[in-house]
Amino acid sequence: MSVEAADIRIPVAISARHVHLCRRTINVLFGRGYVLRPLKPLSQPGQFASEETVALVGPTGRIPHVRVLGPPRSEDQIEISRTDELALGLNAPLRLSGDLSGTPGILVEGPAGRARLDAGLVRALRHIHMSPADAVRLGLKDRDIVRVAVRGGGRDLIFDDVVVRVAEQFRLELHLDSDEGNAAGIGPQSVCRLIRADAREV
Amino acid sequence: MSVEAADIRIPVAISARHVHLCRRTINVLFGRGYVLRPLKPLSQPGQFASEETVALVGPTGRIPHVRVLGPPRSEDQIEISRTDELALGLNAPLRLSGDLSGTPGILVEGPAGRARLDAGLVRALRHIHMSPADAVRLGLKDRDIVRVAVRGGGRDLIFDDVVVRVAEQFRLELHLDSDEGNAAGIGPQSVCRLIRADAREV
Repeated sequence: MSVEAADIRIPVAISARHVHLCRRTINVLFGRGYVLRPLKPLSQPGQFASEETVALVGPTGRIPHVRVLGPPRSEDQIEISRTDELALGLNAPLRLSGDLSGTPGILVEGPAGRARLDAGLVRALRHIHMSPADAVRLGLKDRDIVRVAVRGGGRDLIFDDVVVRVAEQFRLELHLDSDEGNAAGIGPQSVCRLIRADAREV
Repeated sequence: MSVEAADIRIPVAISARHVHLCRRTINVLFGRGYVLRPLKPLSQPGQFASEETVALVGPTGRIPHVRVLGPPRSEDQIEISRTDELALGLNAPLRLSGDLSGTPGILVEGPAGRARLDAGLVRALRHIHMSPADAVRLGLKDRDIVRVAVRGGGRDLIFDDVVVRVAEQFRLELHLDSDEGNAAGIGPQSVCRLIRADAREV
């Protein structure tokens, strides 16, 4: 089978565990009308890491100091890694951001109270954010599946099952979770390149 | 470029963090002349998980309940993941088992004492154990580099930089660390297949 390696470099970001909260949950965890304080901007425009953190509580463990991202969303979304699942004693499905139907809940603790969420616990499907202009340039569209080769960290690998997400406000960037970043040895020396999905060996 | 996918299934095992200890360190951590008690055999013949555990201590964290494997070795070897490095505040090089020159040390705590090891802290290079007969069958030799495709876990990927280790007592098995296993979604449904190293796209 022929393989066509598109030599397109993609910036990469590792997402540590984090939570997106809705207004109602912020009220419970931090107090009525509490406003998240931006700590630093994220690479995706308008998004920020807040100064606020929460604790996640599961049957077999508790993970403190989990960053809250802002701005608030319409639904709570708690993003953890497989490593975190094993620590908490919970299983979360692999999902695209915002695709929360049928996801399990989790107990979340903030300084002003606890919230037992009914849903929203996920592991994030690895994905590439891109603008419509990038998508045209790369010949891709929203929800296409691509492969990404990671080189330079001594643990080279090729990720399949990478979902393309296209939106006006997105900046070109591969998002991996911490397990994926660690397995690929992601560091300053790493180079990520897009490989078209029809380049499958198996 | 042409890709030749050898359809050879490889059993897979995930190695959680663990330690191999020398006689002298066992004496310090568990008491003089202490004998490790086998808890269960490992897939590699003669190797066992012992009932004993130790704690690993670094500048920024402590990891308790780390399994001691037996039998004792001539040198201490402490195998952790990148996730563990970040928890401990230590960096360990990627190494093949037994290749310990220039590796950093670590503080290890046992029930009878503490040992400040001068060397032996590593992240294990992913590798495939195989017997000489398997090596002949697969056309491989010790220290060859191959690629392995993982399918079926919803997080399909291809690992490059997989080192072949050949020894009489080895049973065919791919060894990944916990970060790698989690990133690949390894589970009962996973299928790992060998791909020859000349099948490189990039």
